[in-house]
Amino acid sequence: MSSNFGQNIKLSVFGESHGSAIGCIIDGLPAGFELDMEKIYFEMARRAPGKDKTATPRLEKDIPIILSGVIDNITTGAPLAMEIENSNTKSGDYSNLMSVPRPSHSDYPAYVKYNGNNDIRGGGHFSGRLTAPIVFAGAVAKQILEQKGITVGAHIKSISDVSDKGFDMAEVTAKQLKDVSSKAFAVIDNDVEDKMRQAVEEARLSLDSVGGVIECAAVGLPVGIGSNIFSTVESKLASILFAIPAVKGVEFGAGFDIAAMHGSQANDPYSVKDGRVFIEKNNNGGVLGGMTSGAPIIVRAAIKPTPSISQEQKSVNLQTMEEETLVIKGRHDPCIVPRAVPVIEAAVAFGLLDLMM
Amino acid sequence: MSSNFGQNIKLSVFGESHGSAIGCIIDGLPAGFELDMEKIYFEMARRAPGKDKTATPRLEKDIPIILSGVIDNITTGAPLAMEIENSNTKSGDYSNLMSVPRPSHSDYPAYVKYNGNNDIRGGGHFSGRLTAPIVFAGAVAKQILEQKGITVGAHIKSISDVSDKGFDMAEVTAKQLKDVSSKAFAVIDNDVEDKMRQAVEEARLSLDSVGGVIECAAVGLPVGIGSNIFSTVESKLASILFAIPAVKGVEFGAGFDIAAMHGSQANDPYSVKDGRVFIEKNNNGGVLGGMTSGAPIIVRAAIKPTPSISQEQKSVNLQTMEEETLVIKGRHDPCIVPRAVPVIEAAVAFGLLDLMM
Amino acid sequence: MSSNFGQNIKLSVFGESHGSAIGCIIDGLPAGFELDMEKIYFEMARRAPGKDKTATPRLEKDIPIILSGVIDNITTGAPLAMEIENSNTKSGDYSNLMSVPRPSHSDYPAYVKYNGNNDIRGGGHFSGRLTAPIVFAGAVAKQILEQKGITVGAHIKSISDVSDKGFDMAEVTAKQLKDVSSKAFAVIDNDVEDKMRQAVEEARLSLDSVGGVIECAAVGLPVGIGSNIFSTVESKLASILFAIPAVKGVEFGAGFDIAAMHGSQANDPYSVKDGRVFIEKNNNGGVLGGMTSGAPIIVRAAIKPTPSISQEQKSVNLQTMEEETLVIKGRHDPCIVPRAVPVIEAAVAFGLLDLMM
Amino acid sequence: MSSNFGQNIKLSVFGESHGSAIGCIIDGLPAGFELDMEKIYFEMARRAPGKDKTATPRLEKDIPIILSGVIDNITTGAPLAMEIENSNTKSGDYSNLMSVPRPSHSDYPAYVKYNGNNDIRGGGHFSGRLTAPIVFAGAVAKQILEQKGITVGAHIKSISDVSDKGFDMAEVTAKQLKDVSSKAFAVIDNDVEDKMRQAVEEARLSLDSVGGVIECAAVGLPVGIGSNIFSTVESKLASILFAIPAVKGVEFGAGFDIAAMHGSQANDPYSVKDGRVFIEKNNNGGVLGGMTSGAPIIVRAAIKPTPSISQEQKSVNLQTMEEETLVIKGRHDPCIVPRAVPVIEAAVAFGLLDLMM
Repeated sequence: MSSNFGQNIKLSVFGESHGSAIGCIIDGLPAGFELDMEKIYFEMARRAPGKDKTATPRLEKDIPIILSGVIDNITTGAPLAMEIENSNTKSGDYSNLMSVPRPSHSDYPAYVKYNGNNDIRGGGHFSGRLTAPIVFAGAVAKQILEQKGITVGAHIKSISDVSDKGFDMAEVTAKQLKDVSSKAFAVIDNDVEDKMRQAVEEARLSLDSVGGVIECAAVGLPVGIGSNIFSTVESKLASILFAIPAVKGVEFGAGFDIAAMHGSQANDPYSVKDGRVFIEKNNNGGVLGGMTSGAPIIVRAAIKPTPSISQEQKSVNLQTMEEETLVIKGRHDPCIVPRAVPVIEAAVAFGLLDLMM
Repeated sequence: MSSNFGQNIKLSVFGESHGSAIGCIIDGLPAGFELDMEKIYFEMARRAPGKDKTATPRLEKDIPIILSGVIDNITTGAPLAMEIENSNTKSGDYSNLMSVPRPSHSDYPAYVKYNGNNDIRGGGHFSGRLTAPIVFAGAVAKQILEQKGITVGAHIKSISDVSDKGFDMAEVTAKQLKDVSSKAFAVIDNDVEDKMRQAVEEARLSLDSVGGVIECAAVGLPVGIGSNIFSTVESKLASILFAIPAVKGVEFGAGFDIAAMHGSQANDPYSVKDGRVFIEKNNNGGVLGGMTSGAPIIVRAAIKPTPSISQEQKSVNLQTMEEETLVIKGRHDPCIVPRAVPVIEAAVAFGLLDLMM
Repeated sequence: MSSNFGQNIKLSVFGESHGSAIGCIIDGLPAGFELDMEKIYFEMARRAPGKDKTATPRLEKDIPIILSGVIDNITTGAPLAMEIENSNTKSGDYSNLMSVPRPSHSDYPAYVKYNGNNDIRGGGHFSGRLTAPIVFAGAVAKQILEQKGITVGAHIKSISDVSDKGFDMAEVTAKQLKDVSSKAFAVIDNDVEDKMRQAVEEARLSLDSVGGVIECAAVGLPVGIGSNIFSTVESKLASILFAIPAVKGVEFGAGFDIAAMHGSQANDPYSVKDGRVFIEKNNNGGVLGGMTSGAPIIVRAAIKPTPSISQEQKSVNLQTMEEETLVIKGRHDPCIVPRAVPVIEAAVAFGLLDLMM
Repeated sequence: MSSNFGQNIKLSVFGESHGSAIGCIIDGLPAGFELDMEKIYFEMARRAPGKDKTATPRLEKDIPIILSGVIDNITTGAPLAMEIENSNTKSGDYSNLMSVPRPSHSDYPAYVKYNGNNDIRGGGHFSGRLTAPIVFAGAVAKQILEQKGITVGAHIKSISDVSDKGFDMAEVTAKQLKDVSSKAFAVIDNDVEDKMRQAVEEARLSLDSVGGVIECAAVGLPVGIGSNIFSTVESKLASILFAIPAVKGVEFGAGFDIAAMHGSQANDPYSVKDGRVFIEKNNNGGVLGGMTSGAPIIVRAAIKPTPSISQEQKSVNLQTMEEETLVIKGRHDPCIVPRAVPVIEAAVAFGLLDLMM
């Protein structure tokens, strides 16, 4: 496994769901930056489970403990190492997964790849819990970006078949991003919250799960970050977004819809606004020729339904190579989309910071 | 600009559309591999323009000249360097683009980033012509993969609002991939070719352009390639696919559609087929936990309509900061999707080879 | 700061001398490898101070605590994270170093680079204490190499003007390497131990310090590891050896002496021994054309005298820009060479493992 | 083989001695920099053979042809690709080397590694001729560094047993560096030139060869470039210097001599000079804690005698595994040290530029 990301600022993530700790090293942070720890705790809490019925009842503290790189909340320039102790884990629940892989989980390829040596308790290193260090790193990145006048925010674009309004791709503002991403349930149109919750609850009651789409934006970026061919902004962001478990699609601006448009409809005209170049429509999602165009970055990620469902499922016993019916025990989120919002934000923020350093 | 890709096998691309040559270095190829140059020329020809009315009338030879790393068609283990000489370029066409950027092109951010120093003739290093070395590298990669029993193939999933059938995600075969990708017009359902061509022709006549979706598959991969977090198969492939100009979305398996499914519907059950584990549905597109699952890799890329259209467009004169109406002269593809098929295949093949070396 | 090393197996080191912990992440280890923790503790103890008068009286436990990547001493394939808690630190001693840099230490450039934000207590991230995680990583690497039939060992070639015998460059054996590197005082010729200790003691009594040369060898490597130009075995090993504080020179085989030889004298003839190619002399130190030649790797590192000496020294007050006499308080090794032996071994072992994975 | 170097500015080298061309791609250069092509040709000429009896009579033109990244001598920001056509090669001379490896050459490990597929004509990719693209890249780097007030220069410190004066490590100036490195025979003390030439001539007449030491310095660097642990200035420079064929040792400042000093003697006191911090002695060669100290960078590389000598040598026929006497035909430099001076300068310049971008 290679759990490293970044060219200019390096993130190395470690940990297994039921091991003694998870955490990360962030290498390449500027020295002398004052971290607002409260903001970091806030981001961690957004991702943490147990807040309401959309999430698993397992309680986690997720308090990040900084081991190096920071004195009195000021970065020293040395690698910032952080760990989160694991606790309150119920390892007994996962015993029958050793030989019968859960559908649409990492179990089967991990079994083959690691020859049975990988830690399967709670998904081990493949657990969604490993997104906690990413949220931590993103929370640090967001603060540094904020200082440069850049704001990153995301919302739930859809859960199951319930959709929120989208960002105004050409004109979304920093204030709008902060407002929506600080909501307990991150939707622009508050009226959809109940419908989304209901879709989740219905899935839960039918021992099923639902997925959704998260839309993220970044405003305030200078023009010309990134470059073409193998260092595009899209490549960098897609690369870190596809590191998040359950992401199966990534699109920018009009995304897949642009494929059915005509050029005259898809193209983003230039005009002048407040004495500066303004990009209308922004169907390109803030990226042209791989570089930031000055328009907001608009990126969407498709999140698959939680694969752990309590219904019976078809699987195969890898020892006997006979088909078996599997029932997954334990407690599972019927929908991880709300908790994934800060993870997507964190990934985008960290990806952008790496491009800008 | 950073035009490097790859961890284990490195691709470095160079060139400008109207410069003296374009080309690449591929570093890390195994020694002693016999290249089938005819197959390479065939892939180059698939990408080359001028074959029919879907493409620009500009004629290119695109003959790759190997400078090092190969003797008598056998790789030596040294870096394989290749160049393609540029010829038949009409530089005069682009003179008014210096200060008035073409909408949805790289012109504006490139102007800001490079302060007017970048080569703007024909798009310079941002030209779609730079995909020729990627096709070359992919053609080499495909041969090495083929020797390992892996086949990569793609087809036009849609152009404008005309759609082809999709691959059978769970059961697509190497033969099907070879068949479709060797067609002059790469569609599964031959009946859609005329409709697609008509959509392109209509766009051309109305001085407009159309986009589309390309679907690519790879079969024969062993289980367990790639790993979770920052080295997922999806991260690697998305990273190289978003290097291709005009790609605005990348999805795997059911992709964005999975977001609206229930887990019971989205999950891929395991069964036994011919004594081996078989993955039904394959909504995960052959990747679980970031690793290959043994099912076919299924990936789709959204291609935006060619931004160069002959209609009048709104832009801004960057010298005077006044709005201006722009008419782009020169010859342009009303649709690049057919020519992009081998580019997508090449990117997927090279990305997979890098993961496997 | 960038504290990452490795292409195929990645080492990321963190910590500050007087922070809460130091440690590392090793990413890319094979799964299913059984670690012998006793051997790891043994290597850590070799580096740990306080054993005798050549070292600082500060007592450290240096017990590595594994946070992830290992269950029941078996690697899981996930990143191996390790921390060592810091304790028994006397921070008060370093107060006057804030503005008056110690000669030949990192103080001055760190002050400029980090603008006063770096942790100066005990040298912070620049402390020799940060070699403990390198020894840990090297101890893991040595075990994996040992399984492949490769042995790495080092000895004190010289301290001050007292020299040990050198390895027989062409014929040194695994057994000889293990014997010398497991000695409490790693010299081949036991008779020089007393003379070396005496040189150190004399330096200590005169409030001074001494340096030395460490010679390291690796045997059992297959032919053809590494490659020419930018991936030579020498580049890789020099790169990690110069990461060790106090190393000011690195040479292979005959090293700097080869510059004064004639070709006829320097060249290593080939002969046949036990049916295999044998390389006589081995003035090239086991590396030809950047690749392993099959002969033992022979590498030497020059270690400068401990810059912290108790004599008065000339320095400058960076606040007032006036010259000042500095007296460094605290406890310091008059000679770090004996403790650096396992660090050099570790660096060579980790560098070789990275080349071989 | 991996022929890539650099983190921020990437150099990818290709070619084989008797192939159609050698060259490189430099990726990451700033846009808008005006190259002085005459200076580049001058550096190429310094490395080129055939000027006098110290070099091989083989005539090369070594004219670099720029393929992309430069218009009217101004960098465009796109990758700079360059090729040098090979000509005047006598391939017939090398026929008997296929199975009988030349002592102290890459032949034997390359034969094993590449299984006989590597190009052996003239050393193929292992040829010293591949240093020409490095000199080119270094010539570009030197110009960019010069613009930042940084000068790099080198001289022949010794050939065989004849030594030149060394640089004044604490006080060497840009002017001194430019003066010595522009000499036809780069020595500080002109009186040693004849003695060095005589040593080379004696070796030549006895069918032998000689090596030497090259000393390189860089002045004008800001304080704080590089960082500790795995990104030290020493690591970076040693890594690229050991990429040069024939380099067997690299040392900074007092280098290996520092190992025998006492700390009081080795330490570099600080004083104030012209209102700035001045580092006396500079035994650390301009690097403290892995960072530039503001004092001149002083680095020395040991060059082994040319392994191609015309005397009979002992070798082994790899087909028959029988010992054989080898006589190397063809024309060979009895001493490559004078021609290696610009190569060492180029490597140091490129390494420094990569650290500074």
